[in-house]
Amino acid sequence: MTVASGTPRVDWTDSFSSRAKNLQVSETRALFAVASRPEVVSLAGGMPNLKDLPLHQIARSFESLFAGDGATAMQYGGGQGFEPLREQITDIMSLEGINASAANVTITAGSQHALDLVTQLFIDPGDPILVEAPSYVGALSVFHSYQCEVHHVLMDDEGLIPESLDEAATALEKAGRPAKFLYTVPNFHNPGGMTLSEARRPEIVEICARHHLLILEDNPYGLLGFDGHLYPAMQPLNPDGIIYLGSFSKMFAPGFRIGWALAPDQITEKLVVANETAILSPSMAAELSISTYLRDFDWYGQVDKFRVMYRGRARATMEALTKYLPECTWTHPVGGFYTWVHFPPGINTNEMLPRAVENLVAYVSGTAFYADGRGADYLRIAYCYPPEEEIREGIRRLAVTYEQEKDLLARVSPASKTA
Amino acid sequence: MTVASGTPRVDWTDSFSSRAKNLQVSETRALFAVASRPEVVSLAGGMPNLKDLPLHQIARSFESLFAGDGATAMQYGGGQGFEPLREQITDIMSLEGINASAANVTITAGSQHALDLVTQLFIDPGDPILVEAPSYVGALSVFHSYQCEVHHVLMDDEGLIPESLDEAATALEKAGRPAKFLYTVPNFHNPGGMTLSEARRPEIVEICARHHLLILEDNPYGLLGFDGHLYPAMQPLNPDGIIYLGSFSKMFAPGFRIGWALAPDQITEKLVVANETAILSPSMAAELSISTYLRDFDWYGQVDKFRVMYRGRARATMEALTKYLPECTWTHPVGGFYTWVHFPPGINTNEMLPRAVENLVAYVSGTAFYADGRGADYLRIAYCYPPEEEIREGIRRLAVTYEQEKDLLARVSPASKTA
Repeated sequence: MTVASGTPRVDWTDSFSSRAKNLQVSETRALFAVASRPEVVSLAGGMPNLKDLPLHQIARSFESLFAGDGATAMQYGGGQGFEPLREQITDIMSLEGINASAANVTITAGSQHALDLVTQLFIDPGDPILVEAPSYVGALSVFHSYQCEVHHVLMDDEGLIPESLDEAATALEKAGRPAKFLYTVPNFHNPGGMTLSEARRPEIVEICARHHLLILEDNPYGLLGFDGHLYPAMQPLNPDGIIYLGSFSKMFAPGFRIGWALAPDQITEKLVVANETAILSPSMAAELSISTYLRDFDWYGQVDKFRVMYRGRARATMEALTKYLPECTWTHPVGGFYTWVHFPPGINTNEMLPRAVENLVAYVSGTAFYADGRGADYLRIAYCYPPEEEIREGIRRLAVTYEQEKDLLARVSPASKTA
Repeated sequence: MTVASGTPRVDWTDSFSSRAKNLQVSETRALFAVASRPEVVSLAGGMPNLKDLPLHQIARSFESLFAGDGATAMQYGGGQGFEPLREQITDIMSLEGINASAANVTITAGSQHALDLVTQLFIDPGDPILVEAPSYVGALSVFHSYQCEVHHVLMDDEGLIPESLDEAATALEKAGRPAKFLYTVPNFHNPGGMTLSEARRPEIVEICARHHLLILEDNPYGLLGFDGHLYPAMQPLNPDGIIYLGSFSKMFAPGFRIGWALAPDQITEKLVVANETAILSPSMAAELSISTYLRDFDWYGQVDKFRVMYRGRARATMEALTKYLPECTWTHPVGGFYTWVHFPPGINTNEMLPRAVENLVAYVSGTAFYADGRGADYLRIAYCYPPEEEIREGIRRLAVTYEQEKDLLARVSPASKTA
């Protein structure tokens, strides 16, 4: 036997699947390694703030869970997820007007995996889908990985524009290639910061039903409205035509990687098999931990605390943008983690990013949120993680960067010279 | 707006992807719901026995983890997995002769998900692969889901037969459709119960290297040899040509859903992106829990206890088979969870299964472990979960069922009547 560690490297490139060839290592990864240094104010990541959780009480609660029920918590579970937790999930969804059975809930390794599995169920390579413009970067990664043909639908301050949706769906139908689904984040949009108005919700549902267009209603932030208002889910308007995706990451904590999909029977049946195939079962340790938290703690009171915290951070963001970046425009979120900032002509937020990081502030450029290269005149500010004083300082540094960027543009652009 | 819950059901069948159409709900699921009743001795499932874990000490250890480091444990993590746990994993693998860097380890939501992601990286629909005959049912589910063309390679008591592997690889090459990889469980095979001999390991690696055939070396049971012997991994024989899959499910507990893949640089780079796309990151709560367990407990001493327990159960299984089913043959495992039982001609273990469940014993029929319908003359006995006295009683009930089955065959078969 002669194959030893000294043999030449083997190249597997030609063996990769077309999906693997499609997977791109993020160009900004190295940059974000720099941006994670403590002196950099990161307005980039969407990490929730967990410092306000009652960690000692939670720890004691987990101790009694594992001491009393550890052999269950550390065993394999069912592929659809722990039934008592699925019941608790239906209670949570009822806050938004959803009347669901636990039999239609599938628990997944985070709602990201629910999105991955649902995409697997509907997409053959090249299939067209409709998504908002802009859209959640993690969803675009999934759609890209499954080789979807992504068509963006315009939004305004009230969210997805019904007429644009109808036009896009009609155009694809006329081309003989109807879209497989619409992916939408109706509440406190990532990255847009806008919320779909209540008036538009039935319109969106009606348009999709008319086009036999499945809706993926992704709602990780729904409970985090700053004034406590709960927007009604679209799911009850057409339970047979909507898959609702939910997450514990923002209302509790992301570290357990537990999310869920509520889907019609026919889709749930496939989804459970897809889930079992991919991961056998969700983590029972995680499911029982979350189930225990929901049972033993005032989880909704905790959500109220989160809301107040994020409201303060959003207000600090709005004030700092008004003070430091008056030449920009931005959305005015009423909940969630994000605002979407538009820069005057000439600014490319991708080109500006390394210089922003030099100035010790990080963000995500708008192009990350489009499948078609648009968005270089936008950036996303996530105000969820840094405290208010850091947000103000971060936006001040962003304004310094913007002024430098304008100077740079003025020096290199003949048009500016002659103006 | 008129789409109400009273509208007729919507049918999404035509919208499903070809992968989804391929996903089959297991026909035996309803049967196994019956088989999970407490009066049934289940020799079916591969659930490890966790009752011997020091649950109270583990619970206290998790309490200090969450009280002290909860904001980290409950936050998002990195897509490749928690670096200190990746270091600990390299220490574990070194027991089998693997000299790896944590940079080549990707932590996944169980080793099942590692297998799913690796398959995603290499398989386009219709691509041929080589697997053992028989093979792990969960791997076959993944391969079926990705629409692999599965080619079985024969095994004997020493595991995979090198000549059969060489022939199968050559035949596919000659047909212009080389196999994408070989999937193998070298140690304490599931379902076969046999172990690849040490003499054959370099042969297998050499054959695969010669055919430019990637090896997936799946090793969930490797530390569970009854006499404590550690078989050398194949990975060190060709680190650039082997992906090694590892799991905490059998050496600790499956409830955290944490496994890993050790892969060459080029494949790791893609695997991390695929992992991030599918689940964003593994569960930090699970990663830190396992990392804490490995650090604070005599985990290898615990593995020794598991070994002794499973050895006793395997011995009880062998004795009961000898006593009750002398007309059958079976494999003689030196570790792990399973033995593979062969029945005399005429017996179909699928047809026998409902009658076995009536007699209060359950198993998995051999056909589950083949992609091509073979295996109805085999069944798998998993002796890992029931205590020894239950195993004996279960095999006695299996023998009763077998005798009834022979009577039934004699009554319906003219050949038997005239004999």
